[in-house]
Formats: sequence, C-alpha cells, structure tokens
Amino acid sequence: MIVNTKLSHLAVAVKDIEPAREFFEMITGNSSSNPHLVKSQKVNTSFISIGDTHIELLEPSEEITPISKFLESKGGGIHHLCIETDEFDSLINKIKNKNIRTLGEPSIGAKGKRVIFFHPKDTFGILIELEEK
Amino acid sequence: MIVNTKLSHLAVAVKDIEPAREFFEMITGNSSSNPHLVKSQKVNTSFISIGDTHIELLEPSEEITPISKFLESKGGGIHHLCIETDEFDSLINKIKNKNIRTLGEPSIGAKGKRVIFFHPKDTFGILIELEEK
Repeated sequence: MIVNTKLSHLAVAVKDIEPAREFFEMITGNSSSNPHLVKSQKVNTSFISIGDTHIELLEPSEEITPISKFLESKGGGIHHLCIETDEFDSLINKIKNKNIRTLGEPSIGAKGKRVIFFHPKDTFGILIELEEK
Repeated sequence: MIVNTKLSHLAVAVKDIEPAREFFEMITGNSSSNPHLVKSQKVNTSFISIGDTHIELLEPSEEITPISKFLESKGGGIHHLCIETDEFDSLINKIKNKNIRTLGEPSIGAKGKRVIFFHPKDTFGILIELEEK
C-alpha cells in the first residue's frame, strides 16, 4: 500500500497575530488569509502558503484558552504539525499498533475533514494531527 | 519583487534515530535516507520526504552537543525549520530592517548552500534557518 501524504500545515502559536502575519508574509512572499475565529478552539487563525504546505497562525481569542496556556508555558513556537493522508483509517490502525496513543477519537476539524491527534510523548515530543484527505 | 520560497525541511531532535525513522516512514509512506554524520554539528541526520518538503531527523552523535542540550531541556520536538529562498541576500536585509537579529553571518550549510539563522526570540519562538536556493 502506498500512503499518499503531505504536510498540510505547521501551526504556530502567537500572542498577536498581526506582527506574525507581517513576518510570515515577508519571509514567504505570500499573503495571509484574513484572521478567522474558530470559536470551538478559542483561536483566531490565519493561513500563509509556503510551497505545497501552509503556516497556520494561532492567536488566543480569549484570556484562558489551550493556546494561551501553551504560550505561557513555552513562550510561543510551533504548536503542532498536521499531516494529510488518503489512508486515514488504516494509518491510524498502523500507528495504534505501534502503541502510539491517540488523544481521543477522530473528530471533524475546521475544514470539515476527519482529524485525530496523537500523544506527543509517543511521537518524539511533537503534537501531530492526522487529517483525512 | 516576488520572493520564491518553500519549506526546505522541518528538523526534529531525537534521542534515537532508528525508531524515529521507522515512525516517520510509516506516517509518510516514504523511505528515509541512511543516517549521515555531520561532524561539524555532531549529529547524525536522516531525511524523509513529505510532499515538497522534508523531515530532517537530528540525533546527537556524541554525549555533549547542541542537540543533546536541546533534548535535555525540551525533551525533544521540532528543533528548527528551514525556508529556502531565491532572494537570499535581499530577504536577509528586509528581515534585519525589521530589527530581527541573526545568529551570526551567513555560512555554508550541509548542502553546500548559504544559510543563516535568526534569533528565535525575534521570530515567534521558532528557530528559523534561511537557505539560498
């Protein structure tokens, strides 16, 4: 079986989205999408293309949110990476068979596609989101 | 001026390269390159393609190295990201004009191309390497 994957996005937690949009627009030469509130996650998001992937900026939309906690403890940086696959279910099974824990069950992500997260302690300290193509 | 950029690689610091190669091969469906020692950096590296970018695994090749210090303090995770540009000098000037500090001057990277790093405190907590196309 050939798994067809790509890096869907690289999510960056930022305190203020505007200077981050300006910086990543400058470094990529691409424009960023207008900030969009994702109420369920309490974040304002903006996407910037880079090659065949994207940088997703995540700014807390309220004082106490998962992203504001991340910013407090880590000071910022890469929050997670998202890998898109056309073999969603079989890849989850393969990964689970390696004793890698998931964070809950698949749910519907911001794009209306199925997503699941893996436990970063089992994936080399990186929070990885798997997204169905 | 249109800046032509892509994400060259995403570097992941790992204690042991073999289980990391196995995991990222499984999740991407691609094979990884045989580990290669970069003496100057005291790391063993292996690359895995994902879409038009790569995951670069970094394993310390000695006990005390910059990557082993990173592993001790952070426990692992994404060490840096590398952006490739065909406007290397002009982009560095633009970035410097925004009062973003560089870590030293451009040097020749592992691929024989010019590279420079920016201070992560000035780039949203992410260590960013800029590589000449």
